Amino acid sequence: MHQTTVRVAEGALDANETIADANRADFDRAGVRVVNLMGAPGAGKTALLESALEETGDLRVGVLEGDVRGHLDADRLAHLHVPVTQINTDPAFGGECHLDANMVRSAIPSIPLDEIDLLVVENVGNLVCPAEFTIGEDRRIMVSSVTEGDDKPLKYPLMFRTCELVVLNKVDLLPHVDFDVARFTASLDQVNPRAELIEVSARTGDGADEWRRRLLAAAAPAAR
Amino acid sequence: MHQTTVRVAEGALDANETIADANRADFDRAGVRVVNLMGAPGAGKTALLESALEETGDLRVGVLEGDVRGHLDADRLAHLHVPVTQINTDPAFGGECHLDANMVRSAIPSIPLDEIDLLVVENVGNLVCPAEFTIGEDRRIMVSSVTEGDDKPLKYPLMFRTCELVVLNKVDLLPHVDFDVARFTASLDQVNPRAELIEVSARTGDGADEWRRRLLAAAAPAAR
Repeated sequence: MHQTTVRVAEGALDANETIADANRADFDRAGVRVVNLMGAPGAGKTALLESALEETGDLRVGVLEGDVRGHLDADRLAHLHVPVTQINTDPAFGGECHLDANMVRSAIPSIPLDEIDLLVVENVGNLVCPAEFTIGEDRRIMVSSVTEGDDKPLKYPLMFRTCELVVLNKVDLLPHVDFDVARFTASLDQVNPRAELIEVSARTGDGADEWRRRLLAAAAPAAR
Repeated sequence: MHQTTVRVAEGALDANETIADANRADFDRAGVRVVNLMGAPGAGKTALLESALEETGDLRVGVLEGDVRGHLDADRLAHLHVPVTQINTDPAFGGECHLDANMVRSAIPSIPLDEIDLLVVENVGNLVCPAEFTIGEDRRIMVSSVTEGDDKPLKYPLMFRTCELVVLNKVDLLPHVDFDVARFTASLDQVNPRAELIEVSARTGDGADEWRRRLLAAAAPAAR
């Protein structure tokens, strides 16, 4: 007799992938590319978005903000004149620690897809589960800050493995923390040798132009 | 007709609570108090443990290290001559983002309960799900670092609400970051007015004695 074993966890992720495909089809029809922006709480995701979206040229960018509760990050982006949609994950027991494809799907009717070329989804601050749940994105970018320690790629390998670009933020603090950039680079290389790495400081503006260029490049057809 | 609605999520948390009670009973029988130490990735949980456990007097302390993968934190504690037990959460799809009561239960046979008075459980770095899952602890302590931003109590309210003590770490970096201690304190007060707050720097040793005193006090009978 042929036996089939299906693990529930895999089933949940399969279902997520199915919905993510539907999201991607909707984004494709609208000609919108999608970046899933991830990182730990306080890594600087919102600060980097504020910096990059100050000047987007002809490119029309929208933001989908994922938070457990509240809209503090959306408020921070309000002055940028980009459409911002907020998702809160807290109706589910105590708050979900990540966005999943279905949450993003429920937000799609609120996103003005016809008015944007690029949608940046700021995920919930977390280095574990957001990496497991695709949402229909074209690109994955993560922000890691030097204050978090140079061991993080080895401690949260899936997150670093599934990103095409790692943005090392808060490099202005390097003189004040015990962070070895070479050790971080070697750790990242160990879990994801194809990842690109840029160094920035959202606070001083160091590397801001390169960061903006990389983020907005996700809207180019070649980004697929 | 009387209707009863049971949400699946609540059921999962109820099951966790049942197992947590069993853990607590085991710890009680052994006369061991348990601290659940939580915080974001890179907040400084391990560094603070290294500092506090250098000198514990007559108190016998053990550590249970929770990580998605690897044993980097356990290695950092190896020189302290305290028993360290490691749990990895990654057998479950891609890695669980928190410890739950059942994971801790499976580790209990590996913890030398007869040889310790206090067990410190270092949870997975995450500000969401660890707050939702009790593990049989007597006390909850969280580490929040000034580099994460002063808005965190409002963004991750459940975590801050369920802790008795908040350790604000990396205060040596205050001159170099945009962190308003008064705003943080007000935010914390808003979600958890009963939380105690201490300021420390694991790097400079500032506040280290007070931190050690507070951690080890969790072993006192009055801590229950």
